[in-house]
Amino acid sequence: METIKTLLEHKTIRKYKSDPVDDKVLDEILDAGFRASTTGNMQVYSVIVSKERDKRKELCKIHFGQEMVEQAPVLLTFCADFNRFNKWCRQRDADPGYDNFLSFFTAAIDALLVAQNVAVAAEAHGLGICYLGTTTYQADKLIGFFDLPSGVVPVTTLVVGYPDENPDQVDRLPAEGVVHHETYKDYSPEDIDRIYREKEQLPLTAQLIDENQLDNLAQIFTFKRYTKKDNLHFSRVLLDVLHDQGFMNHEGD
Amino acid sequence: METIKTLLEHKTIRKYKSDPVDDKVLDEILDAGFRASTTGNMQVYSVIVSKERDKRKELCKIHFGQEMVEQAPVLLTFCADFNRFNKWCRQRDADPGYDNFLSFFTAAIDALLVAQNVAVAAEAHGLGICYLGTTTYQADKLIGFFDLPSGVVPVTTLVVGYPDENPDQVDRLPAEGVVHHETYKDYSPEDIDRIYREKEQLPLTAQLIDENQLDNLAQIFTFKRYTKKDNLHFSRVLLDVLHDQGFMNHEGD
Repeated sequence: METIKTLLEHKTIRKYKSDPVDDKVLDEILDAGFRASTTGNMQVYSVIVSKERDKRKELCKIHFGQEMVEQAPVLLTFCADFNRFNKWCRQRDADPGYDNFLSFFTAAIDALLVAQNVAVAAEAHGLGICYLGTTTYQADKLIGFFDLPSGVVPVTTLVVGYPDENPDQVDRLPAEGVVHHETYKDYSPEDIDRIYREKEQLPLTAQLIDENQLDNLAQIFTFKRYTKKDNLHFSRVLLDVLHDQGFMNHEGD
Repeated sequence: METIKTLLEHKTIRKYKSDPVDDKVLDEILDAGFRASTTGNMQVYSVIVSKERDKRKELCKIHFGQEMVEQAPVLLTFCADFNRFNKWCRQRDADPGYDNFLSFFTAAIDALLVAQNVAVAAEAHGLGICYLGTTTYQADKLIGFFDLPSGVVPVTTLVVGYPDENPDQVDRLPAEGVVHHETYKDYSPEDIDRIYREKEQLPLTAQLIDENQLDNLAQIFTFKRYTKKDNLHFSRVLLDVLHDQGFMNHEGD
């Protein structure tokens, strides 16, 4: 079954050819994205397509200098967007009540389901993709860069282009580690050891521990990759963004 | 191309046969889900599978009595989950710093990308799906029902089963209404009229306006479907949940 195969063979690509993506292909991928489920068929999202070289160069800087952002021909920034819907409501004498956290999260869900459909459609076309987590870290900068009005917040970005590498597929936890039946079965120390064993025994893990001069893989995450200090800083950025973009007006509660 | 066809033919299904979903099929669908991109390969999500009739009956009540929740054989609740990762870190002398809003949002993104892969895989198997927006409204109730520990928040639910209806595909806004090139092009009143014209002229829209005795479709959204009062209430519920589940500790900032 081709669809299942496409999903199972996903690999994140971080090196891209400069070959452009045909407009017809890009349109087809986006149309496939827009068929994703959306709350109440409101489609409270927008996608910003970045193809111009200069723009991608600037975006590369915003996304912490990740080279693929400049290298790949297409960058798609997915935004939670109540601006269009609010404008429609106001133009129809319908007072919109979407300036709150629930509405932001609803719109974010919408945008993320579209993004994943686009990712799948792109891979079905032989393209490679990479999600950029830097989108939420740098949401304030992206709002300035794209000139996003109130009601619009970027939630993720896809790098899209033809792969210039063929990496091995990365590991995943065993399914029993992430699936629960009927109720949440919390993890015993033995469960944790078992679930993470394969990941901890990978040659890549040994190499990372050696390079980082740390005791184990978990410490690489907490001391190097996703530190408390960074998380607190970017939490503040993101909450400020939600406030500034008009999604935290709860006075009427 | 089968994958693109699967994506383009998506329809939300709200009536299901009672036929069970084979465990092998369900496992294959979930495995396809777990290949979705995940931040730093942390897989900070969990899926709770509900198949028992009694449980689905209870869940039906929590999800505002939507009959399909009891009718369909499988319900999948996707959770942002840092609990497992935190436990792993603590067991490895790595102090986790994931008790903040950024970490919640990172985990929510992870969970939503998995959910959409699962939705696509299910449809490729001839199954129908429906997303439940009530998951975030009733997050507090679901936390109680599933016994979710600190670090775990339900973000969406998929109803999965064999379709017992064959509805027409619903409309979408024209692509020009949701795609922006290089920068965000804000909407003029004429843009809004043009983008929403097709939706406003649908026979279904005329019928809804008639049934609701309102002036237009936008008012149906703001006065009936997604009111400011409800949005404010559920914003508070969701923010309280994030606080209670340990994702709003920003004192160290």
